[in-house]
Parts: sequence; structure tokens; C-alpha cells
Amino acid sequence: MKIGLQEIEDIALGAAVLGTGGGGDPYIGKLLAIDAVEKNGDVELIDPQKVNDHDFFVCIAAMGAPTVIVEKIPSGSEAVLALKELEKYLNKKVSAIVPIEQGGLNSQIPIAVAAKLNLPMVDCDGMGRAFPEVQMVTFHLYGISATPMVVCDERKNSVLIKACDNLWAERLARAVTVQMGGSAFTASFPMEGFQLKQACIPNSVTLSIKIGKTIREARSKGFNPIESLVKLLSGKIIFRGKIVDVIRRTQAGFTRGEVKLEGLEEHSGRTLVIDFQNENLIAKLNGKIIATVPDLITILDTETGTPITTEGLKYGQRVTVIGIPCNEKWRTKKGLETVGPRYFGYNVEYVPLEQVGDVN
Amino acid sequence: MKIGLQEIEDIALGAAVLGTGGGGDPYIGKLLAIDAVEKNGDVELIDPQKVNDHDFFVCIAAMGAPTVIVEKIPSGSEAVLALKELEKYLNKKVSAIVPIEQGGLNSQIPIAVAAKLNLPMVDCDGMGRAFPEVQMVTFHLYGISATPMVVCDERKNSVLIKACDNLWAERLARAVTVQMGGSAFTASFPMEGFQLKQACIPNSVTLSIKIGKTIREARSKGFNPIESLVKLLSGKIIFRGKIVDVIRRTQAGFTRGEVKLEGLEEHSGRTLVIDFQNENLIAKLNGKIIATVPDLITILDTETGTPITTEGLKYGQRVTVIGIPCNEKWRTKKGLETVGPRYFGYNVEYVPLEQVGDVN
Repeated sequence: MKIGLQEIEDIALGAAVLGTGGGGDPYIGKLLAIDAVEKNGDVELIDPQKVNDHDFFVCIAAMGAPTVIVEKIPSGSEAVLALKELEKYLNKKVSAIVPIEQGGLNSQIPIAVAAKLNLPMVDCDGMGRAFPEVQMVTFHLYGISATPMVVCDERKNSVLIKACDNLWAERLARAVTVQMGGSAFTASFPMEGFQLKQACIPNSVTLSIKIGKTIREARSKGFNPIESLVKLLSGKIIFRGKIVDVIRRTQAGFTRGEVKLEGLEEHSGRTLVIDFQNENLIAKLNGKIIATVPDLITILDTETGTPITTEGLKYGQRVTVIGIPCNEKWRTKKGLETVGPRYFGYNVEYVPLEQVGDVN
Repeated sequence: MKIGLQEIEDIALGAAVLGTGGGGDPYIGKLLAIDAVEKNGDVELIDPQKVNDHDFFVCIAAMGAPTVIVEKIPSGSEAVLALKELEKYLNKKVSAIVPIEQGGLNSQIPIAVAAKLNLPMVDCDGMGRAFPEVQMVTFHLYGISATPMVVCDERKNSVLIKACDNLWAERLARAVTVQMGGSAFTASFPMEGFQLKQACIPNSVTLSIKIGKTIREARSKGFNPIESLVKLLSGKIIFRGKIVDVIRRTQAGFTRGEVKLEGLEEHSGRTLVIDFQNENLIAKLNGKIIATVPDLITILDTETGTPITTEGLKYGQRVTVIGIPCNEKWRTKKGLETVGPRYFGYNVEYVPLEQVGDVN
């Protein structure tokens, strides 16, 4: 399969649904990907099960607070520099680019880099959604080190980190990202094919394409895409309402805050609050938790089904909140230690979305 | 010349005089240097004018807030790791270790590393004193890049920085040092012999040895060493008094604050305030500036002549403050832009110490 202009549009939309509010508006990333594909041709998308066991793979991503990423426009060369520095340090050539997550900007940056360097991209990622921190990838669950990793900015500052563990990789890379102005580009989790096969979330790029296509086709036929999306993703509608408050701050290299919704239609008279750290973390209906990380909580425009990222939330928006079960890799003991509600400071057990009672 | 146990003692004392309060108490560094020299033999001290033009040199130093450095005991292997990582990245072998400054801990760490690796040390440094920031070295004045530089900690975290300029090297290395707990070890300013010759402050290690020897010999003969020190360094006594207040905070990877002295003997009835950022920056007598960076302002114990570092200042200490003219390299336009009073936020012109009127 090839990623061309249509796939870029579909991925931008689909990954923003899986991105659960994180990763920043995909618009700028899309411009970079379109430009690179127009100049260099389509990007080959390869199945992770078909890669060679000893080929070399690297994750390419933007890092930082989405509120900053959408304002501090990348030059497009930062991520390429990060990859080149990592290749130079390890004295290895990358066989294909791996997306670290499905999310706004980070669904597009790997396409842009792959196109620029005439490399394929692997149809997988390390989250099957988006998460805010470096170690929050399934690669971490399989003992793969995030480092050596390289962090680069638009001034051509380049920092190569070798950390004693993946939590230290996050701390050091975050501090560097904050100094670089709150957003930066990374090449991380260098690994071989046999590791990638085992540890990735497979076929998440084609899932993003399917999601984007579903929204696009529903729109073109005059249907509302939300019901189709929920079916495609085995999810459920958590809440319909309008946004009555958004608290948002850019802090320590993250966008943190909460959004408050008042119910409409079947949820009239109820209140939903969603906390976020780049991504939506937890949803509370009248104070009762009805969905938490690692399950996906996504806010869609009720009328168009367009996903709304956390930095795009505004007073008065009519929205539909959907919940989507996360990949089974996140529901293991180590998965929940890494991205469960307790890691984010909530003193509650994770309850899979499917086991939470109906909210109507 | 060789650096053995006696020289280590003399350098610790002498460099703390030139260190103008910075670099932390040399005690811990001295233990590391003594241990390394006892195990591996004396360190050869080579004259910078005699190095080969295309040999390869690297500065080795501790970085961070002295208040932290004296509490967070180094394992002794951090600086070696930093050097090894830099050698690996550049694929070059270091010919000799260069001290970055004369100052507490940083007079000793290069000796410890040189001894451990059986390398010589060059009889020079990049300051002829101590300064708080990465770019504040004469190497910077000659256009030599601080990076690639490596920052390491006791957990074996290692960060290789390539910055777009030396101010960015400082910002990125400082952020990493803060994350590493407020102190770290660096290998920086990789350069060739011809660069070192031109840009260094020559023979500053032997000057530290002379200072230390002067204090030691005066003590053993029952003399007060302060008059001899002032003569040796072409300095002058600025103030005699006792410490009546110390304000000190550990902030953004630095130790910042001020010390207030009430005059004794010929300065009775007057007040001296010294501001510091790791090192002493500016001295104000009854509000009038009588010495500023880049000239050296050093606080000595009045009775013994022992230099007191900024984190060792205590209420009630009887002290003598001396001023020492800085190296001419610092009195150039670029020198004063880099380390003059305006850089540190004081809206005053630099007046060389010798031109300030007598304070008596």
C-alpha cells in the first residue's frame, strides 16, 4: 500500500480520533507531509509482520506541549536531523520509519520524513492511540530502550540522550524540549525488526486510514459519521453535550487541564468533566468515573464527527464524547503500571470501558 | 612537572582563592584526586605552549550549583564516562585533560580523571578564575565551540549536546544538569593544540600551586598569608569585616545570593555587600561599587587566609575580602560582553580594579 495525498488526509482525520485529543492539530504536520509527498512521491507502507528481523527501525515524532506545537511552526528539517544524528551515532542505516503514536501532528511527521528520505513507513505504532510521555509505548513493555535518542529543534540544536532507563529518557528529553521552547523533534527507540514485530501495535496506520475514510464518505453522502465510527472501533458514545468551561495551562512541557460539558439530548441535566495531559485521561459523569486511560476518550464535533484536540477545545462547542477500548497490550500488568490511571495520579483501579455500566 | 599529593593540596587551596567563591568546597574533589593519584601515580603537567598543534584536548568539569555539589557526592566515574562518550562520538583520542577553571571541585576533577586514564593535564584553564556558565571561557572568545559536549551523572545517564552556539550549549546543559539533580559532570570544548595555545589562560595551574604553597608556608612559619597573597597576585585588600547576613538560594542550577559584611579595624562603621551567582560577582561598599566581574573578588578567613566558597559563608565569620585583576583576555570587548557586569544584569560599566579609588 502507498500513502499519497488522499491517505494523508484520511490519516490526519483518523489519527486525530485515535489521538484522544493529543498530538496537536494535524494541520501543520499535514502541510509538511503533503509537501514532502508532492516533491518525492508516495510513501510505501509496509506490514510489520513482513519486515526483516535484523533490519533497523527508528521512531520519529514531535515532543512537547500541543499548545506550543501549533504555534511554533516546524521547519520540516528537525526530524530529519534527529534521524541522521541517530544513524551517525549508531553507525546504522534506517530501513523504515516507525510512527510512535496515532495522533495529530505525529501521524504526519513520520510520513514527511519517510517521503523526504525515500524510506518506507511501517504500518504500526507504539501506542495505538496517543500518550504524553516517552516511555508510554508498547516497546517499553517489551524492554526496548528509548535511547540512544536524539532531540532536535529548528535552530539545529541536537541532543543525544543515553538514559539509564526509559523514565530517565522522558525526564531528560522533556527538560531539553522545554529549553528548546516547549516543542522539539525526536528520533527514539532504535530497534531491530524482530523487536518491532513483537512489541508494536500492528496495522494502526491502516486503521487511521479506515477511520478517516469513514468520516469522509459519511460526509460526502450527507450522513453523520459518529455511529459508523463507534461501530468500526467497537466503542460507545459516552456523552453528548456542549462545552461550558475549559481550563488549560502549558506546564513543564505538557498541556494540562480539564474540560467541562453540560449534557444535551439524552444526557440533559448531567455534567461530564474530562481531565487531560496532552491527551484526555479520565472522564467523570456527575463525579463518577466512566472511562480512564488507557482506554481512548475522544471528543468529536457532534455535527461533523471531526475530532477536537485538547488545545482546540472552546466554550460552546457541541460535542459527542466516545470511548474506545485500548489495545490488549495496555491491559497487562506492566501496561497498566505504565499508562493506567494510577500513573497519572488518580487513586482508582482501571476498569475496562466495556465493563462500565451504560451511562444513559 | 608532576602533580602529586603535595601539589593536590596546594592546588585545592590556590584554586579556591582564584575561584572567587565558586566551584564548591574542594574537599570532595581532593579525595577523588588523592585516591586516583595514589592508585595510578602522579599526573604529568604539561605547558600549553609545548603541546602538538593537532593533538586533541577536552575540558573536564563538574557543572551545577555548589550547594548541591557538596551534598551529592560524585561516584568518581561520571567525568570519565563523559570523556569516553565524547571520544567515541568524535572518534578521537584525547592527548591531555584541560581544566575548565580554577575553582573548588573543578581544580581537582581534571586531576582525578587524568590520573585514572594515565593522561597528562595541561597547565592552563579557560578562565584563570571560576565563572558560573558554560560559555564563560576564553575559548569562547576565540570562537571555539563548547559542543559536542557530554553531560553525565552518577546513574550513568549521558547526554551529548551539539548546540547552535555556546549560549545554547549553556541553556541545554543547564537544563540537563538540573534534571540530573542539580549537579553533573561534563566533557566540553573539544579542540586541537593550536586552538588551545591561542585561547587558554596559560600556567594557571602552576599559579594555583604557588598560591597554595604561599598559604601553606606562611602558616607553617606562623605568618598570616594574606599580605603575601595580595603581593603574589598583584591584588589589593578591599575590606576587613565580619559576616552579618547571608542570603542564599539554589535556583535554576545555580547558587545565588548575597553576603553582607560589617567593617572591622580600618573599615569599622562601613558595610560591604557581595552578590554571587556560584562565584562572587560584585562588591558594594556602602552602596558604591568597588569591584566587579571579571575581576576576582575573594573572601578569605582573616586569621588563616583560607578561601571561603559561597556555599561555606556563615554568620559571624571574620573575613578579609581581596580583589585580584583578571586576565587581560577578559578586558577585551568580547570578554566584557561575555562576563562583564552587564551580562549578569548590573547596569554599570566595568572599571578595572586598579582604577577604582582606595577604599580606606
